[in-house]
Amino acid sequence: MTRTIKGAEIARHIRARVAERVAETTATGRVPGLATILVGDDPASAVYVAAKRRAIREAGMRDVHRRLPHHATQTEVAAVIDELAAAPDVHGILLQLPLPAQLDAPPLIDRIPVTKDVDGLTTASAGRLARGERGLRPCTPSGVIELLDAEGIELKGACVAVVGWGELVGRPLAQLLLRRGATVTVAHEFTADLTAVTRPADVVVVATGVRGLIGPEHIKPGATVIDVGIHRTPEGLTGDVRAAELDGIAGRITPVPGGVGPMTIAMLLVNTLQAAEWEAERETVPA
Amino acid sequence: MTRTIKGAEIARHIRARVAERVAETTATGRVPGLATILVGDDPASAVYVAAKRRAIREAGMRDVHRRLPHHATQTEVAAVIDELAAAPDVHGILLQLPLPAQLDAPPLIDRIPVTKDVDGLTTASAGRLARGERGLRPCTPSGVIELLDAEGIELKGACVAVVGWGELVGRPLAQLLLRRGATVTVAHEFTADLTAVTRPADVVVVATGVRGLIGPEHIKPGATVIDVGIHRTPEGLTGDVRAAELDGIAGRITPVPGGVGPMTIAMLLVNTLQAAEWEAERETVPA
Ligand SMILES: NC(=O)c1ccc[n+]([C@@H]2O[C@H](COP(=O)([O-])OP(=O)(O)OC[C@H]3O[C@@H](n4cnc5c(N)ncnc54)[C@H](O)[C@@H]3O)[C@@H](O)[C@H]2O)c1
Ligand SMILES: NC(=O)c1ccc[n+]([C@@H]2O[C@H](COP(=O)([O-])OP(=O)(O)OC[C@H]3O[C@@H](n4cnc5c(N)ncnc54)[C@H](O)[C@@H]3O)[C@@H](O)[C@H]2O)c1
Repeated sequence: MTRTIKGAEIARHIRARVAERVAETTATGRVPGLATILVGDDPASAVYVAAKRRAIREAGMRDVHRRLPHHATQTEVAAVIDELAAAPDVHGILLQLPLPAQLDAPPLIDRIPVTKDVDGLTTASAGRLARGERGLRPCTPSGVIELLDAEGIELKGACVAVVGWGELVGRPLAQLLLRRGATVTVAHEFTADLTAVTRPADVVVVATGVRGLIGPEHIKPGATVIDVGIHRTPEGLTGDVRAAELDGIAGRITPVPGGVGPMTIAMLLVNTLQAAEWEAERETVPA
Repeated sequence: MTRTIKGAEIARHIRARVAERVAETTATGRVPGLATILVGDDPASAVYVAAKRRAIREAGMRDVHRRLPHHATQTEVAAVIDELAAAPDVHGILLQLPLPAQLDAPPLIDRIPVTKDVDGLTTASAGRLARGERGLRPCTPSGVIELLDAEGIELKGACVAVVGWGELVGRPLAQLLLRRGATVTVAHEFTADLTAVTRPADVVVVATGVRGLIGPEHIKPGATVIDVGIHRTPEGLTGDVRAAELDGIAGRITPVPGGVGPMTIAMLLVNTLQAAEWEAERETVPA
């Protein structure tokens, strides 16, 4: 029997814990605040931002939102980021990606102060992760780690295959796994023999954006499979893994939807709370 | 027959090319300058710094040197870094590691401006590497890449095992290899079955500091073996690989000494020249 990893449920527990801490800090007069920035009219982005804002409010945090038109200029977006960077009641800034084509995303991302970088995507945050320094980590990969922890999977010494080396997921995830003592193989579009990489692994994490890439031929019986992919199809959401074909083979698997997706939002709340707590620390303990 | 990768010779060619470029920029009135900082009396560090300074002078660059006593304070070292950071004729700053125990190394490393970080070890440089942005890369791992390129080894699609995930070598090297399209497995002290990791690999890079860790049982016939380890023994320098036992098994192997070691110094010169050229670019093209 393949066990389903209940990401939605694990995420709910994390969000409840965050809401408790928020209630405590709010009682001391500090309300953690997250600002979301949405540029343009991409419908998927609008859905994601709406879900994040709902979660922020449900956790009792301050929901700050800035909406810019699809023709916004680099200078206009930069000005909004600078305003939020200076706002004392904003502890986290999330610039929803992708941006419209006329905008140059990396310098805008890097304009977010590292202390408010709750998406963990700035160069400064990437440097802190690479050097193992304190900092905010990207939400989806840290959600994957939380799922594995919640399932009691020992990472130290485990063989983990990370399929996909994208900026949002695979790249930071490989580093988080190595920090936890896993032996990590990273595969990507140039990998000649994907089965040779995934088949020996105790844990396979798939984040490629290629629908149904991974099937039974790739997975060692009993292995844990984490499917980060999200694809909208006429039959509903589906992932990078052919989950039905893995039933009875994988030891554990995340469903799509209800697996990694809800964890991404939960970790955004965790990061916002963390950013607010570090900010409070800096105010009380002079540097 | 196992082919010896002539690191010393490849490094000599690189240094000659750097010297030519230095002569050109010197003719235009700009002499690239590297400042080395040596704190304390560690004999190995003194030898390394002397070798680097010699190479700098031989390349026609300006050799700036600061020597601090073993009891130097954090503030004193910081002041020297700040002075060199502000010096217009210094394009690169190298803080020789390890530092004496009373000093906190990471904040001192991070005090080096990213534009002068020729060792590529600051958090800012690590972030640039992680995000694939323009920047200075750590010398030893980029030396390993140069060796593989000089040997004409195709990295795209190759299976590479990186043994050792240290800050100086393994960690940045894994990222450089992935950028080049290799499928990379990282092993370290918690790896349960090292042979299973190294044996399928086309290229094995070893940087563990464990003398003689890798032998014939680890290597696929014909594979390329890069030995980054350096150990001083009564019989002379030796590495992390039992090279003699790999003769006739490995396709190519780096010797110790004369393999990776000389490349590290060559890449330091390359980085210093690069830093000086980027500095000239910034002066002529306003940001
Ligand atoms: N669940 C969530 O909350 C969440 C969050 C972010 C991203 N995602 C999903 O995760 C996936 C990856 O996101 P990303 O931003 O890292 O993607 P990306 O496009 O930046 O990277 C994709 C990676 O997959 C690799 N790849 C492509 N084809 C491959 C193949 N045939 N075999 C092996 N590797 C292949 C590419 O080389 C690349 O490294 C997407 O499907 C995205 O929708 C989900
Ligand atoms: N040739 C050069 O110019 C040059 C430059 C820098 C470092 N080095 C040498 O490279 C080596 C590594 O340097 P570093 O600073 O990255 O080291 P480090 O101490 O930071 O890291 C060592 C790594 O090796 C791993 N390791 C330890 N024992 C292991 C084992 N039994 N099996 C597998 N992995 C094991 C550790 O987990 C760690 O990830 C050292 O020997 C150093 O002298 C050479």
